[in-house]
Amino acid sequence: MTYQSLREECYEANMQLPKLGLVLFTFGNVSAVDRSQAVFAIKPSGVPYEFLKLEDIVIMDYDAKVVDGKMRPSSDTKTHAQLYKNWEGIGGITHTHSTYAVAWSQAGLDIPIFGTTHADHTHQDIPCAPVLTDEMIEGDYEFETGNQIFNCFADKGLSYKEMEMVLLQNHGPFTWGKTAEKSVYSAAVLEEVARMAYLTLQINPNTPRIKDTLRLKHYERKHGKNAYYGQGC
Amino acid sequence: MTYQSLREECYEANMQLPKLGLVLFTFGNVSAVDRSQAVFAIKPSGVPYEFLKLEDIVIMDYDAKVVDGKMRPSSDTKTHAQLYKNWEGIGGITHTHSTYAVAWSQAGLDIPIFGTTHADHTHQDIPCAPVLTDEMIEGDYEFETGNQIFNCFADKGLSYKEMEMVLLQNHGPFTWGKTAEKSVYSAAVLEEVARMAYLTLQINPNTPRIKDTLRLKHYERKHGKNAYYGQGC
Amino acid sequence: MTYQSLREECYEANMQLPKLGLVLFTFGNVSAVDRSQAVFAIKPSGVPYEFLKLEDIVIMDYDAKVVDGKMRPSSDTKTHAQLYKNWEGIGGITHTHSTYAVAWSQAGLDIPIFGTTHADHTHQDIPCAPVLTDEMIEGDYEFETGNQIFNCFADKGLSYKEMEMVLLQNHGPFTWGKTAEKSVYSAAVLEEVARMAYLTLQINPNTPRIKDTLRLKHYERKHGKNAYYGQGC
Amino acid sequence: MTYQSLREECYEANMQLPKLGLVLFTFGNVSAVDRSQAVFAIKPSGVPYEFLKLEDIVIMDYDAKVVDGKMRPSSDTKTHAQLYKNWEGIGGITHTHSTYAVAWSQAGLDIPIFGTTHADHTHQDIPCAPVLTDEMIEGDYEFETGNQIFNCFADKGLSYKEMEMVLLQNHGPFTWGKTAEKSVYSAAVLEEVARMAYLTLQINPNTPRIKDTLRLKHYERKHGKNAYYGQGC
Repeated sequence: MTYQSLREECYEANMQLPKLGLVLFTFGNVSAVDRSQAVFAIKPSGVPYEFLKLEDIVIMDYDAKVVDGKMRPSSDTKTHAQLYKNWEGIGGITHTHSTYAVAWSQAGLDIPIFGTTHADHTHQDIPCAPVLTDEMIEGDYEFETGNQIFNCFADKGLSYKEMEMVLLQNHGPFTWGKTAEKSVYSAAVLEEVARMAYLTLQINPNTPRIKDTLRLKHYERKHGKNAYYGQGC
Repeated sequence: MTYQSLREECYEANMQLPKLGLVLFTFGNVSAVDRSQAVFAIKPSGVPYEFLKLEDIVIMDYDAKVVDGKMRPSSDTKTHAQLYKNWEGIGGITHTHSTYAVAWSQAGLDIPIFGTTHADHTHQDIPCAPVLTDEMIEGDYEFETGNQIFNCFADKGLSYKEMEMVLLQNHGPFTWGKTAEKSVYSAAVLEEVARMAYLTLQINPNTPRIKDTLRLKHYERKHGKNAYYGQGC
Repeated sequence: MTYQSLREECYEANMQLPKLGLVLFTFGNVSAVDRSQAVFAIKPSGVPYEFLKLEDIVIMDYDAKVVDGKMRPSSDTKTHAQLYKNWEGIGGITHTHSTYAVAWSQAGLDIPIFGTTHADHTHQDIPCAPVLTDEMIEGDYEFETGNQIFNCFADKGLSYKEMEMVLLQNHGPFTWGKTAEKSVYSAAVLEEVARMAYLTLQINPNTPRIKDTLRLKHYERKHGKNAYYGQGC
Repeated sequence: MTYQSLREECYEANMQLPKLGLVLFTFGNVSAVDRSQAVFAIKPSGVPYEFLKLEDIVIMDYDAKVVDGKMRPSSDTKTHAQLYKNWEGIGGITHTHSTYAVAWSQAGLDIPIFGTTHADHTHQDIPCAPVLTDEMIEGDYEFETGNQIFNCFADKGLSYKEMEMVLLQNHGPFTWGKTAEKSVYSAAVLEEVARMAYLTLQINPNTPRIKDTLRLKHYERKHGKNAYYGQGC
């Protein structure tokens, strides 16, 4: 099989979604990129995880054209392609309809940074990109979804290297990382942070954000140049 | 065994309910229809899923008379019969007391359409049929439950082909589809959409509905004549 | 082993609690009575379910004196004894600290009857017995807990045959039934009904109770003299 | 292997965290102390539970210097060291980011004592230590986290023997006990009590605390000199 190791990376990452409780039926997809060949592997559209096979994974180029594979790729493929094309540093992308992340998306609100669980992963609010304009929706919708993520990051001055997650208003989350596996990790962290922020505001609707020193302390101890979290590898 | 394949379809679909977390004890039932013979198969009343056997499944006609089987059918059988008799396009029906769908039923409210998870499956609010009149309740209750679903769909101008789910006020959900399996799928989607809508309103009680262009875009990309979701089969 | 079948009934019913998600660690106990010998079997105090053995079950009389067994019985034993002594029709009792039932107990409120899931099991609000007086607490506390349940049922005009569950304010639920197994069933139903009522009021804080005709219809179709739910055995 | 039994106690206790649903990925750590040798064993930093091996456990002294082991210890190690150094009666410490405990931490509120589930374990509100000062955060952060716990206990007049849990504002819980296993037990109890208190206030925002007689009755029957809960061993 051509692109076997890329397909394997994509397949393994996709199979993490049901294990982590992030998907119902087929409501999610993960892709993995091979930068040396400028292609990415993605889940086929509408195939239940329990029936997904390695050879079903579809290989695409950055313009969302099929390079290899017999099945139709995820209907969200153009969004993945746009992100790979414009953000050279990412190696994998995950899209889910996980419950709490979707609830914040539907509410149309950024997730405020309330604690160190959030700050361990990013030091800013998790952005909710505004709903697409009618022109974007009626045009090349999934391609424009990628563009709306760029618009949001430009408007808020965010870097995709420091903020590896976004909500699309009325839709749900996209997350990414240096590998497909890490993009799934980000999807699980986002869902948990979304749940914690929800509960926090139910307990105290006037909860202020975490203060700057603590927010940056936790981000830096894990991601800064003098980071001391983990095994340094 | 007569009606074996119909019983099997019904049995398999019923056994999905506990796996999907949609039932506690015996609080649910699924039926499957054979249009060529004008009969449907349904779960027997009050039998726990762990003890349910293929031969326990009861075969009924559209007037809710037993055609084959030794056990008493589900107490909700007349509602199923009414739906099969009047809606020729459906092949299976599911009734559950799943938690979030029941909560909306008890609150007596339609589930507003807030996002694409909802719009991927139907492009309108999920209706809550008003509680039955005293005459209906004290008359042929389960038969009238079916009629109340028709009343609700007529009042709101809904099509059972585009809206495959309904809530009964103070009771719970009924869902349907082209097969019994698809009616179970609809029951699981409804429960998740009900949960997401609940959380959305807890986060932002003034959340507006999803706008028309996005609502229709998602419905059409999965169900329209130019649908491109799934493998086209 | 003496009292072997009674111990088995008690043991099996206790082991259902963790399977149904109704207990954390040792926070629950089930007892089973043998009316012919005027004794009941109960879980020993503080023994984790994973280590519980058949021979650990303790046999007690209705005055809460040990009849057989080497271990110390549940600290709630006198409450069980009081219920068996005064309510001759019950065969088993379950006490848990299940999450939603405890939340209602802590809030000190009866659980309003909002839907048919509730009405299928009892046609009235689930009562919350007021917190015990200081004299009762500082006296024979667990014995008086039984008495407070009787006080509550007397004040509200309830019958233990039609209402097989109660909340103790600031504490948690007790449930009962014709067998130990059925008392566990009632504990699971109570937890689910408590959760549904909670969610219903979060969605619509002004939700009215289910109307009388529907409430009685569902109770009667399952428990009335012309009941047609289940297999009639 | 040196310190084998200490490593085993630490390893076994750590492995309880995912089983009890208290951690996502690596968001938690447990330590176990050997008072006779004045060392403690702790989880290495950033190692997923599924890959954790006995020999990965790191042995530290009370000044948070590595005594034995090849891996980098948990980034929270200095907080553990401070607690062991100052509180001689504790044998194990657990830190998690469990969902409901974090929500209360983020809201910055003590968990009020509403019922007997709480009072069975401690007879006071569970304290939330205020967020550290900027000087503490920018200084020796994890060491100062331990100090902030002492400040909180001093301010509120609490004893670590009667209150085996604390929340750190904007962060999450630390719990302890006579053994590592008991500190994990406390972490699970805290999460459940936090969830129950949350639900209680959602049902009735004006819920008063449990009254003194009942609060002390339950604490004493389990922890007092005349305790009669458990098997007395």
